[in-house]
Amino acid sequence: MPVTRAELAAAIRATSRLDGTFQLRSGATATEYFDKYRFESDPALLSAIARELASLVPPDIQLLAGLELGGVPVATAVSLHTGLPCVFVRKRAKDYGTCRLAEGDEVSGKRLLIVEDVVTSGGQVAKSCDDLRRLGASIEHALCVIDRCAGGRELLQEAGIELHALFVQDDLGGGRR
Amino acid sequence: MPVTRAELAAAIRATSRLDGTFQLRSGATATEYFDKYRFESDPALLSAIARELASLVPPDIQLLAGLELGGVPVATAVSLHTGLPCVFVRKRAKDYGTCRLAEGDEVSGKRLLIVEDVVTSGGQVAKSCDDLRRLGASIEHALCVIDRCAGGRELLQEAGIELHALFVQDDLGGGRR
Repeated sequence: MPVTRAELAAAIRATSRLDGTFQLRSGATATEYFDKYRFESDPALLSAIARELASLVPPDIQLLAGLELGGVPVATAVSLHTGLPCVFVRKRAKDYGTCRLAEGDEVSGKRLLIVEDVVTSGGQVAKSCDDLRRLGASIEHALCVIDRCAGGRELLQEAGIELHALFVQDDLGGGRR
Repeated sequence: MPVTRAELAAAIRATSRLDGTFQLRSGATATEYFDKYRFESDPALLSAIARELASLVPPDIQLLAGLELGGVPVATAVSLHTGLPCVFVRKRAKDYGTCRLAEGDEVSGKRLLIVEDVVTSGGQVAKSCDDLRRLGASIEHALCVIDRCAGGRELLQEAGIELHALFVQDDLGGGRR
């Protein structure tokens, strides 16, 4: 069970770095891959991460918003740790039932904290923030486990959102995919 | 904070029953709707549910498998409560990266417990079990918060899977959508 921040970074690295042959989104292949779901799959690790993330939650947040799919286990763990309610944000809304983009509590008029596992370019986070603001949510902060330092912080800043990251890429060593 | 099983059922009902006009998947409209995501959105409720579900986990289970999207917060909470690792099962696999249907730990050769929020016809659960078995997982049990008693138990039984439900529809009163 990792207790210091450095031990936690080492445990995430050890758990999530896979060797093999992997096809990347770009079509290229790689011989190692950082599988972000590995650290969410391990409850001791996820619990330690949630504890650290909880200390980064800005004051006055009313609702956590976990982005599908990787942000959902992280947001759930932070919700259980902090007692803050949580919504689960789809990449696109379902077209039946309650027709929700954000499943769970009402987002309108609430101060939301976006919760994501890994932020790379920030494109999906920015899109989800746009969608949630259109539903009446107030968003000034996003929280992630790992900031890959690939433009996400800057993109979000342009949208008036401050990114709070538990770790940046360098904390975990190389291996950016 | 609900402490008895009956109080927990009442809390789920109070939190998840919505009034309004809702378009159902069938195209029909309804004036009330059971929003299963409401009980997952409330950390006190989700925590109480996870505690009860933990007592229903069969012996010898090695890995929890939460089905996208609603099963993911439930499985995460049970994973944090029991210490069992957890995978997050997509409706269909991504076609890049690690190409996984089940995100997280390896499923091959493991005894999995399927975790779902609500089981209705059981069609998606049965399909996901097929997919996971094709990946080498051993599956004999599924666990859900609510069994809507709409054929799911029987369909899963035909596939050699026993459904363990914390509540059946009648425990929560009417309002089946």
